[in-house]
Amino acid sequence: MTGRVYIVGAGPGDPKLITLKAVETIKKADVVLYDRLVSKGILLMIPKRTEKIYVGRDVGDDYKHQSATNDLMVKFAKKKKNVVRLKGGDPFIFGRGGEEAEFLRANKIKFELIPGITSGIGSAEYSGIPLTHRDYASSVVFVTGHEDAKKTKTSVKWKKLATSVDTIVIMMGLSRLEKICEELALGGLDKKTPVAVIQNGTTSKHRMVKGNLSNISEKVHQAKIKPPSIIVVGKVVDLSEIIGWRK
Amino acid sequence: MTGRVYIVGAGPGDPKLITLKAVETIKKADVVLYDRLVSKGILLMIPKRTEKIYVGRDVGDDYKHQSATNDLMVKFAKKKKNVVRLKGGDPFIFGRGGEEAEFLRANKIKFELIPGITSGIGSAEYSGIPLTHRDYASSVVFVTGHEDAKKTKTSVKWKKLATSVDTIVIMMGLSRLEKICEELALGGLDKKTPVAVIQNGTTSKHRMVKGNLSNISEKVHQAKIKPPSIIVVGKVVDLSEIIGWRK
Repeated sequence: MTGRVYIVGAGPGDPKLITLKAVETIKKADVVLYDRLVSKGILLMIPKRTEKIYVGRDVGDDYKHQSATNDLMVKFAKKKKNVVRLKGGDPFIFGRGGEEAEFLRANKIKFELIPGITSGIGSAEYSGIPLTHRDYASSVVFVTGHEDAKKTKTSVKWKKLATSVDTIVIMMGLSRLEKICEELALGGLDKKTPVAVIQNGTTSKHRMVKGNLSNISEKVHQAKIKPPSIIVVGKVVDLSEIIGWRK
Repeated sequence: MTGRVYIVGAGPGDPKLITLKAVETIKKADVVLYDRLVSKGILLMIPKRTEKIYVGRDVGDDYKHQSATNDLMVKFAKKKKNVVRLKGGDPFIFGRGGEEAEFLRANKIKFELIPGITSGIGSAEYSGIPLTHRDYASSVVFVTGHEDAKKTKTSVKWKKLATSVDTIVIMMGLSRLEKICEELALGGLDKKTPVAVIQNGTTSKHRMVKGNLSNISEKVHQAKIKPPSIIVVGKVVDLSEIIGWRK
């Protein structure tokens, strides 16, 4: 018998946006392996007796880092420890939860998956941007702006995306914002299409800059917006003027 | 001074997938207006002193129903009651939270929004389907299969969607499954593309039927799959063979 690994989403930032199930699981863990984007308020929920190990990634070192984390999960499970692999957002929305689960399966370690609120949804909601809306948006896509380093070319079809989906949420795309906006415009999206960039969504440092496809890059630069940020493109961004609800 | 309205996502079904913030808010409510898809386990969290009102929709009666719910929110808030508007999933992912917030703003009622785990994400996760994956999916779209009755023609561009996004999650699309699969195939998606249909996702009645674009409709019919169900289209569906984790 080995221990069990729980791959858990911690939610978007506000510590109260974690699920009851995630908290219950954390309370029973022997070991918690946690990421950079898990908020302090959530780390405080981890019992004192539980071993806490930071496994946040260092940029440019993706593969080595992921492999070390995988090995830790297996190592502790084989010592009959219950392990929580705690991730910001949701494990299956650009969280690599799938790959970690595959690794655990290959190593015959039992695991469970606990969803979390993805930062794309949480950040938009705290900004008063309804990602779907009966009048303006029948579809919303979540797409990564930061593709896997091993890929020789981008697999995101920005130009096709431009006019096939109503709302576009780009995660980890801040450093490529200008290029992405250009591609979307080339794909046929009106340059006046509203764009919001939300930094530290749902946390006490939540902030948003708004513009459109042609000027958002400059505005974000002026406002010194930093990661972690999400980008929302689409008509629904304008609704934040009406239903933004946080001071 | 009026009361405040909290538009709250109850999550996908498993009562433990509700957030701490949602539970806290429910505990303090004077009135809870709840939908059909809010699970019994969550209704049991509502204090006895709190008024509970079912506002689930009757099919074919969308507009009247929504307007009655809007009026109730305003009526109670004006009586200085704290109102929780409790919805299955997330309020902004096909939850009409945006429209309700607009109505409250127009009536000068203060409100807050509390995200929930959308059933699309929760259902996939409990089935072991990673909606994104470094090797197979850089994008995931959530799209409604049941468009607004007032619209004279569909605004979802199924054919364009087919090849612009890696994973397609269709909500409220069961009754149009065959047609949607046809459109996606016409749009260029291989007829062998795997498709999963998940009924009652994350609940004790969670079940999944899998097939591909050309046979899923027949399989779903044979298995007597009913709403509420979500449809997942894309290569990632196959990963459930490896990382499905629930018995």
